[in-house]
Amino acid sequence: MKDKLLILSGGMDSVTMLYHYQNEIALALSFNYGANHNAKELAFAALHCQQLGIAHVVIDLGFMAQHFKSSLLEGADAIPEADYDEENMKSTVVPFRNGIMLSIAAGLANSRGLKAVMIANHGGDHAIYPDCRQVFVSAMDEAVGAGTDNEVRIFAPYTNLCKSDIAKIGAGLGIDYSLTWSCYKGQEVHCGVCATCRERKQALADAGIEDTTVYQS
Amino acid sequence: MKDKLLILSGGMDSVTMLYHYQNEIALALSFNYGANHNAKELAFAALHCQQLGIAHVVIDLGFMAQHFKSSLLEGADAIPEADYDEENMKSTVVPFRNGIMLSIAAGLANSRGLKAVMIANHGGDHAIYPDCRQVFVSAMDEAVGAGTDNEVRIFAPYTNLCKSDIAKIGAGLGIDYSLTWSCYKGQEVHCGVCATCRERKQALADAGIEDTTVYQS
Repeated sequence: MKDKLLILSGGMDSVTMLYHYQNEIALALSFNYGANHNAKELAFAALHCQQLGIAHVVIDLGFMAQHFKSSLLEGADAIPEADYDEENMKSTVVPFRNGIMLSIAAGLANSRGLKAVMIANHGGDHAIYPDCRQVFVSAMDEAVGAGTDNEVRIFAPYTNLCKSDIAKIGAGLGIDYSLTWSCYKGQEVHCGVCATCRERKQALADAGIEDTTVYQS
Repeated sequence: MKDKLLILSGGMDSVTMLYHYQNEIALALSFNYGANHNAKELAFAALHCQQLGIAHVVIDLGFMAQHFKSSLLEGADAIPEADYDEENMKSTVVPFRNGIMLSIAAGLANSRGLKAVMIANHGGDHAIYPDCRQVFVSAMDEAVGAGTDNEVRIFAPYTNLCKSDIAKIGAGLGIDYSLTWSCYKGQEVHCGVCATCRERKQALADAGIEDTTVYQS
């Protein structure tokens, strides 16, 4: 039954979820929150919704770039270039970003009579981003249930998968990952050296997918 | 210690909390979400922050008026005029509004190094608005804690008071309630007949406060 709303960034994980659960998703919701790479991501988000015939809404959260503190909102030069680990990536945390997205998604789902909000958080992000962990998702699910008279709940089926597992699902579905965006720098092509590009390369390699992404270096 | 952020609408309840906890509040946060009465409320919110020397941020949530369904977002004629009870007021629910406001407030608090988000939900709203109840506030507090590595928590000290109790606190603090806004119609002066105006009159009467509000009827 098509009664779910998916939060879709245009990156590998949420694009995989869009194809994986396409028969259950009535609406995809993307956010422009002023991150360096939002424009790149959003173009791919729109493309996949069009290909699958799924309605797509984009909501602007310009206040984040104006009022929040994160290297993700400060231009390409602020993005760390080493491996994807806690010390390097901490500066890219946008405080309570997933909480904000899930809340808005819950309100929109409730307005449209949809029963679940899907989000593609995964295990690889747990160490760095507190709002990607199971304990957060469970608490947020309780809050959304309580705040909507249980008309909406959260469904996050990739919470305990790693990014390579997700790429394997995508390989099985025939997804063309060159039509997704990862790089936090958000320049013309993927930089190839930031932590998010490194993580992308690794996941595609682990899943045995030929990486046709154009990298700057 | 001034380490808290208050969500301030400019209505009786949050203005009371602003004065009541003025020594703990570092920042007041108001939202313009496209409701009929936002402009009226926001002017009073700004006025009280200025009087108390408390920093004030206003965030625009224009997407709500565009995408969400509620009579509160549909113009004055859509607002029910009878008593403040469940049947009449249901149409004024803005889906998961408090969840959205608390999430954004939590992210902003975390960005500024503040430790708590305060909200002035109260017992009189429990029947109608699921996102004003204790069970919602507790779940949301868990979610905010989990999503910020426990750097931010929620503090909602009026959750189990009624509006008359709050007005009594305000009377003790000498608050001039003519400088607050309640009417959901958001016209030049308070209409005096909508459910929110009726509730306002009752609370002021219960607290023994002379009601100097200008009402249209």
